[in-house]
Amino acid sequence: MLESLKKAVYEANMLLPAHHLVTFTWGNVSGVDREAGLFVIKPSGVPYESLTPDDMVVMDLHGRKVEGKLNPSSDTATHWELYNRFPAIGGIVHTHSRWATIWAQAGREIPPYGTTHADYIYGAVPITRSLTEDEVTRAYELETGKVIAAHFEDHKLNPIAVPCVLVRNHGPFTWGKDAMDAVHNAVVLEEVAMMAWHTEALPVLQPREDMPDYLKEKHYQRKHGPNAYYGQK
Amino acid sequence: MLESLKKAVYEANMLLPAHHLVTFTWGNVSGVDREAGLFVIKPSGVPYESLTPDDMVVMDLHGRKVEGKLNPSSDTATHWELYNRFPAIGGIVHTHSRWATIWAQAGREIPPYGTTHADYIYGAVPITRSLTEDEVTRAYELETGKVIAAHFEDHKLNPIAVPCVLVRNHGPFTWGKDAMDAVHNAVVLEEVAMMAWHTEALPVLQPREDMPDYLKEKHYQRKHGPNAYYGQK
Amino acid sequence: MLESLKKAVYEANMLLPAHHLVTFTWGNVSGVDREAGLFVIKPSGVPYESLTPDDMVVMDLHGRKVEGKLNPSSDTATHWELYNRFPAIGGIVHTHSRWATIWAQAGREIPPYGTTHADYIYGAVPITRSLTEDEVTRAYELETGKVIAAHFEDHKLNPIAVPCVLVRNHGPFTWGKDAMDAVHNAVVLEEVAMMAWHTEALPVLQPREDMPDYLKEKHYQRKHGPNAYYGQK
Amino acid sequence: MLESLKKAVYEANMLLPAHHLVTFTWGNVSGVDREAGLFVIKPSGVPYESLTPDDMVVMDLHGRKVEGKLNPSSDTATHWELYNRFPAIGGIVHTHSRWATIWAQAGREIPPYGTTHADYIYGAVPITRSLTEDEVTRAYELETGKVIAAHFEDHKLNPIAVPCVLVRNHGPFTWGKDAMDAVHNAVVLEEVAMMAWHTEALPVLQPREDMPDYLKEKHYQRKHGPNAYYGQK
Repeated sequence: MLESLKKAVYEANMLLPAHHLVTFTWGNVSGVDREAGLFVIKPSGVPYESLTPDDMVVMDLHGRKVEGKLNPSSDTATHWELYNRFPAIGGIVHTHSRWATIWAQAGREIPPYGTTHADYIYGAVPITRSLTEDEVTRAYELETGKVIAAHFEDHKLNPIAVPCVLVRNHGPFTWGKDAMDAVHNAVVLEEVAMMAWHTEALPVLQPREDMPDYLKEKHYQRKHGPNAYYGQK
Repeated sequence: MLESLKKAVYEANMLLPAHHLVTFTWGNVSGVDREAGLFVIKPSGVPYESLTPDDMVVMDLHGRKVEGKLNPSSDTATHWELYNRFPAIGGIVHTHSRWATIWAQAGREIPPYGTTHADYIYGAVPITRSLTEDEVTRAYELETGKVIAAHFEDHKLNPIAVPCVLVRNHGPFTWGKDAMDAVHNAVVLEEVAMMAWHTEALPVLQPREDMPDYLKEKHYQRKHGPNAYYGQK
Repeated sequence: MLESLKKAVYEANMLLPAHHLVTFTWGNVSGVDREAGLFVIKPSGVPYESLTPDDMVVMDLHGRKVEGKLNPSSDTATHWELYNRFPAIGGIVHTHSRWATIWAQAGREIPPYGTTHADYIYGAVPITRSLTEDEVTRAYELETGKVIAAHFEDHKLNPIAVPCVLVRNHGPFTWGKDAMDAVHNAVVLEEVAMMAWHTEALPVLQPREDMPDYLKEKHYQRKHGPNAYYGQK
Repeated sequence: MLESLKKAVYEANMLLPAHHLVTFTWGNVSGVDREAGLFVIKPSGVPYESLTPDDMVVMDLHGRKVEGKLNPSSDTATHWELYNRFPAIGGIVHTHSRWATIWAQAGREIPPYGTTHADYIYGAVPITRSLTEDEVTRAYELETGKVIAAHFEDHKLNPIAVPCVLVRNHGPFTWGKDAMDAVHNAVVLEEVAMMAWHTEALPVLQPREDMPDYLKEKHYQRKHGPNAYYGQK
C-alpha cells in the first residue's frame, strides 16, 4: 500500500546523510497521505546504507501500525501528534543536526539575523519549554509533539510560515508541504543556525589591531601593482 | 545570441557549488558584454544540477529582458545597477556564503588582518548601511545596487581595488574583470572572512595553563629521542 | 591465530579515517578474545592506506607479544591495562580526534547538554587527573591506563554506561562490547564534544540587534507572499 | 637536471591541495640537494591542476635561477635564506592554511596544549616580529627569511625540534628533512593550530546549566535500559 509515498519518504530519508544532517541513524523523515489518514515513516535504528522503500512503516493517525515488518522510528508519536495538530503540513523531519542542536542545547531561540533566515522562516526559530518530569516519564514522544503544538498555539505561530522548531535540550523538528519540502527546511535551518551562532559570537567592536599599512601596500602591489611580480607573464 | 558569454557565465555559476559557496539556489553570477550593452545572468530558482548554458537570460543595461525563456535571478536589478555604476567591471557574483554572510549579519566590515586579505583587497571589506523601509518597499533589488555604489562613492573606494562588499543583514557581492574573476574573488572573500572571524575571536592574551613540561618532554622523546619507541624500525 | 578477530580489528581501524577521526597514524583500535586471554591491536606508525589484517599484532593480557612481525601501537600498555581493569569491555579505541582532544586539552569534562549525549553516555564524559612526573617517566602508557581505571573506581563510574574518557592534555579513549562498538562510541563522542563546545560558547543572552522588520517582511514575501517573484512559474 | 628531486618536490606540492592546506595557488613547496647546492621550487601562480614535474624551477643557494622556463614562487627568497641559515633542513613549505594563518594574524605563538603538539613540536610554535617598513620595501621575501632565522637564533630554537614558524600577519612556514616531511609538518601544524584555538576559546568554568536528570535518564534508558524500545529486536 501507499507505494509511491513510501518511495518518496524513502528518498527524503536518504537526503539526510547526503546533506550531512545525520550521524549513524540519528534522524527520521515521514510523509502523510491526508485522504487515507495514514503516514509513512522510517523504521527505528536501521542504517541508511541498508534502508529500502519496503522498510518504510505505515501508521494511522491514531498511532497504530497499519503495515510494515519493522518497528517505526522511536519518535513516531511526535510525528503523529504534529500531523494531527498541524493539518496543513505533509511531511516531517527530525534530526540531531549539529548547529540546530547546539541552539536547542543552549536553550535559545534563533533570532532572524539575515535575509537567508527571512527567506524561509517568518520570525525567530522558536524553542519549546522543557518537558516536565511527568511528561517525560509518561509518554515522552507524544508529549514532545504536544509541547511543540502548544508553543505554536500560545505564541500564535503559523506552522507554514515557521516550518521548524527546536525542542529544548534535544534538537530540531522541521516540516513542509511534503517529506521532501521538510528536508529542504531542515537544510535551511542548519545553515541559518550555523550563521546565527557565528553572528552572535563575533565581537561587536573590533578589538584587534590590524596589519601595518606598508605590509598591506606591499602585498597588494606585488600582485596587482605596475611592478607586480607574482605569477607568470 | 552571446553564446560564448552564456557559456562562460554558465561555467562561472557552476563553480559556486564546486567551491561550496551556495546551498540550493542561493547564488547567481552574471557577465557583461560592454560593446553590446547586454549582460547574461542565471535564471531565478533553477537548481545547479539541472542548469544549462541555454537557460542563461540576456538582459540589457536598462533592466529589460532581451532573450531567455526563464525569469532572470530575482537579484538582477542589483547586477544591472552595478554594471552601470562600475564601468570597469565585467562580472558579478552574489551568494549567501557562510562566513561573508556572518560578517554581513553582524553589521561589521572585515578588517585586513593579514596578507591573504591584502593580496586581493585594498583595505577593509566594506559594509553598506541598512536600506531604509522606503528603499526596501519600493525597488528593493535596484536600491541595493544604489546603496552599494553610493558607499563606494562616499568612501572614495575603487571597485577594482576593492572587488567586494557586504550588504548589511544580507550577504556578499563580489565582482571582477569577468564572471570567472568575480567567482575567484567570491572564494577569496569567503576565505578571508573565515580567517578574520577567528582572528578576532582568539583571546589577545593566553588565558590557559599549558601542559606539564615532563609530559611535553615524554611525548617528544618517545617519537624523536634517542630511545624513541614509536613506529617500526 | 585469531584470524577473524584480526579481520574485525583491522576493519574497525579502517573506520577511523573513514569517520575523519584520525590524521596520519594518530589512532589505534584493539579487540580482545576473553577466552583466549589475548587481544589484537594495530601496529605502531603504519599508515592506514597500507594496513592489512595480517599486520595486526596479538598480545596477551600480561603485555607480551604473542604473534606479529611489527611492533604494536605505542599505546598498547594502556589498552592492556584497561582490558584487565574493565572485564566487561571487548574493544578499545584511542584517537586524537579534534573536538574530544580540545576538551582534553582544556582540562574539562564534557557536561551532558542534550539528548544526543544522553542517548549513549550516562552523565558527563569524565576527564582524568594529570599524570605525575614519576608516572610519565616510569611507565607512561601503563600508568595512563591505571589513571583511567582509578578515576572510574573513585567516581563509581560503570565503564559500560560511560564508554569513554578524556585523558588530560592528551585525548580520548573509548570502548565497547567489541572493536566496532568502540569505534561507534568514538564517533558519538566526537559529535557530542563538538556540540557541547558550541553550546557553552554561545552567549546566554542575545547580545545583538536583529534585522529590520521591513526587511524580514520583504524577503519572506518575495519568496512566499501572494506577489512572490522568486523562481519560475 | 635533478629529475628525481623535481618529481619529489612536485609530489609534495600536490599534497597541499589534497590535505586542504591551500586555496587556489596559495602555497609552495621546495626541496634542496645539498651536494649540488641547488633547490627545486614550485613556479609562481601556476594552478595545481595543471602543474607538472617539468614546471619545477631549479635555483642555486645564491638565489639565481639555474633551470626552468617559468618564474619561481614569489616567496623563493624566503626559501633560499632558510636553506642557508638552517643547514639541517631539506624541504620547506609555505601556505596560508586557515588555522595557522589565524594565529599568525592574531599575533600569537601557539602554546603547547597537548600531546598532539608535543609529539612533533618541542615547545610553542614561535611567531616572528613584524617586519619593519624598510625591510618590507627593500627586499621583502629575503627579509622574511632573515627575520625567521633571527628569531630562532635569538631564542636558541633548534629548527629540527621546532619545524615551523608563524610569520606575523602572514602565515606559516614549515620544514623538515625533505619536501615530503615538510608537508607532513604543515599538516600537523594546521591540526595543532585548530585544536589550540578551540582549547583557548572554551570557557574555563562551565557557565551553563545542563539538562534535567529525568531527561538524561529517559534517553539513556530508552536505548539501553531493560525496557529499551529504540531499534529493532
